[in-house]
Amino acid sequence: MHLSPLVTSIPENPLRALFPYAGRPGMLNLASGHPSRDAYDVPGLEAAAAAAASEANAWSYGPAGGDPDLIEALAGLSAPVPKGHRLLVTSGAQQAVDLALRALAPPGSRVLLPEPIYPAILSLCAAAGIHPLGYSVAAGDQDLAGLAGTLAEGHIRAIYALPTFSNPTGESWSRRQRLRMLELCAAAGVPVVEDDPYRMIHLDAPPPSSLAELSRKVPGVVVVHAGSLSKFVAPGLRLGWAIAPAPLAQAMQELRQATDLQPNSFAQRVAVHYLRSGRVEAHLERVRALYAARKTALASVLHLAGFDVPNTGGGMFLFPRLPEGQGADALFERAVAANVLIAPGRAFALPGRGAGLDDRVRLCFAGLSEERIREAAQRLVGAMERAES
Amino acid sequence: MHLSPLVTSIPENPLRALFPYAGRPGMLNLASGHPSRDAYDVPGLEAAAAAAASEANAWSYGPAGGDPDLIEALAGLSAPVPKGHRLLVTSGAQQAVDLALRALAPPGSRVLLPEPIYPAILSLCAAAGIHPLGYSVAAGDQDLAGLAGTLAEGHIRAIYALPTFSNPTGESWSRRQRLRMLELCAAAGVPVVEDDPYRMIHLDAPPPSSLAELSRKVPGVVVVHAGSLSKFVAPGLRLGWAIAPAPLAQAMQELRQATDLQPNSFAQRVAVHYLRSGRVEAHLERVRALYAARKTALASVLHLAGFDVPNTGGGMFLFPRLPEGQGADALFERAVAANVLIAPGRAFALPGRGAGLDDRVRLCFAGLSEERIREAAQRLVGAMERAES
Repeated sequence: MHLSPLVTSIPENPLRALFPYAGRPGMLNLASGHPSRDAYDVPGLEAAAAAAASEANAWSYGPAGGDPDLIEALAGLSAPVPKGHRLLVTSGAQQAVDLALRALAPPGSRVLLPEPIYPAILSLCAAAGIHPLGYSVAAGDQDLAGLAGTLAEGHIRAIYALPTFSNPTGESWSRRQRLRMLELCAAAGVPVVEDDPYRMIHLDAPPPSSLAELSRKVPGVVVVHAGSLSKFVAPGLRLGWAIAPAPLAQAMQELRQATDLQPNSFAQRVAVHYLRSGRVEAHLERVRALYAARKTALASVLHLAGFDVPNTGGGMFLFPRLPEGQGADALFERAVAANVLIAPGRAFALPGRGAGLDDRVRLCFAGLSEERIREAAQRLVGAMERAES
Repeated sequence: MHLSPLVTSIPENPLRALFPYAGRPGMLNLASGHPSRDAYDVPGLEAAAAAAASEANAWSYGPAGGDPDLIEALAGLSAPVPKGHRLLVTSGAQQAVDLALRALAPPGSRVLLPEPIYPAILSLCAAAGIHPLGYSVAAGDQDLAGLAGTLAEGHIRAIYALPTFSNPTGESWSRRQRLRMLELCAAAGVPVVEDDPYRMIHLDAPPPSSLAELSRKVPGVVVVHAGSLSKFVAPGLRLGWAIAPAPLAQAMQELRQATDLQPNSFAQRVAVHYLRSGRVEAHLERVRALYAARKTALASVLHLAGFDVPNTGGGMFLFPRLPEGQGADALFERAVAANVLIAPGRAFALPGRGAGLDDRVRLCFAGLSEERIREAAQRLVGAMERAES
């Protein structure tokens, strides 16, 4: 038996290497990007599940592109689906991105990924035989000069972006950066895959318009928009969506049928009933308040201890710079000894890079209560200070 | 925007071309392989859904390989998981087969598929860039001489088989054929992917042991076994499984994580509660009795009208040979005019073949009541006889 080289090329996901630590008794986990259980509206979901379970079509095969009622409900969540586009229901935003990149980029071709990067996107590229090249968009880089150069090198089949409350940084691109990026991609003829699962988790003002919305102002650019119910309804439903120009949506749907036939009928009916229940806005307000308090608790302890904590407006993560002279890999070991789990910056590097990320750590503020997150932050600062003394 | 040639190479699924006809008022559908809605144990599933919905882990992220309780319950359904093997939960048997073939066969490589073939397997191969070659196992072919020759040609990365209540034929390989096939594959070093979703739907005696079970008697052969809850619990749950040697299971799990992260947490908890409810055996007996009566009704009308109806023991399909001089493509048109939908044999051909299948039609007996299936069969016979007269 020989395994396919595409499979053996999948890099070890450095975040999964942290799982064994997460289970240790007393460990406070700031590393995993999981919502806390009190962030689910369980009574609302129970009612939706009961309504769904009594429907025969919840148990049957259904359309490959998704349940028509769910397509309508999802289209109503954000901006309307543009003319000439279709919304496909997917198994989370991960499947939406996977289908979009595989539909656009054959094995052996190249796509652009931002640095730092959510590592599951690297796994996805490796499994599809796609070669990733890095680009970066820094807060001060309003003209995206570096991206212009990279796009001009040519032979790029697609560019992936997570411009809103990014994983791992929590930061968002400005409206000017978004428009400039779309202009560059239009000029280079490179389609954009916009991963946008955190948009609803804004903790103060709503974020800038998505690349998909702004694309109407930029003739000729192609944008696939990927959304998810995982971050504001429940990840266990495994439901996301993609909005794409109809021919690309059709190609993605055919790939999807070849892979796993169709979205989960029952989970889709649960989502339909939940989204129609009138509970979503109040639930979202509750989650936003919960996460805002947790983020503030985490950021203030770190700031006092000398971390450089960028000002982010939402999502689930902070990606602070450690105080001068600290390294994330070394801090990781001491933090584990102090029963707090963090994700070192290097976990978010493209293959063969990462040296520039050793002064960063990713910390998720969504998974622990305000009290426990303050305790976790204090343990982390304690671990650092003990090493200094 | 350029689409990947892998996507544009996906052949049109001839069964999906039938969907528009299926929705016509008054149409009786013998073409689609869908269980009838009265074949779901809705009260049992409702109770399982209520139990699942109250659990926080139903709404959370979970392990990529599947919920440990469901893994245990699925392993208990059939033979125990062999030593050195793992059971992975998948989104239906389709995803199990997709992951197994993609883990074994890189783009550009070759796999063997049986003729006639369930067309979604052709889509899966095209989407993965895998080239399919055909083999056939006829009822009288106990030595599988043709397969021996094909395997000896070399450079085959895997062989796919559906030896039990096949789709489309409904027929099963004998125990002798199974053992011979395993010996040939062991000698050629070709791993076997056994798709086995219909095993529980035996309508008289239980079928011969699976290739996976028999593989213990054949040193050196590798078998991946794919099962499904779709045919005897509910397709809308989108749950299946794969049992594979641990290194291959690990590779499949990594591919799965890259594609859509993990199985549906909520659907898995529903399945756990349903499989533990003690209702499965009685439900299966009810479904078997329902389908046996339907199959008998269909087969007897066709037999009287001169169809050659092979004697099958289970599953959801018959694949009879039309009376001398009849062609399936011509009959399809007349059947539609008589408000009955059938799947012409050619729909189950490998690319560029199919001429030998024009005297066959696939008929699903699982989707209509006994009364309606008799009516459907009579309409089909009427359509054929009107053409003769």
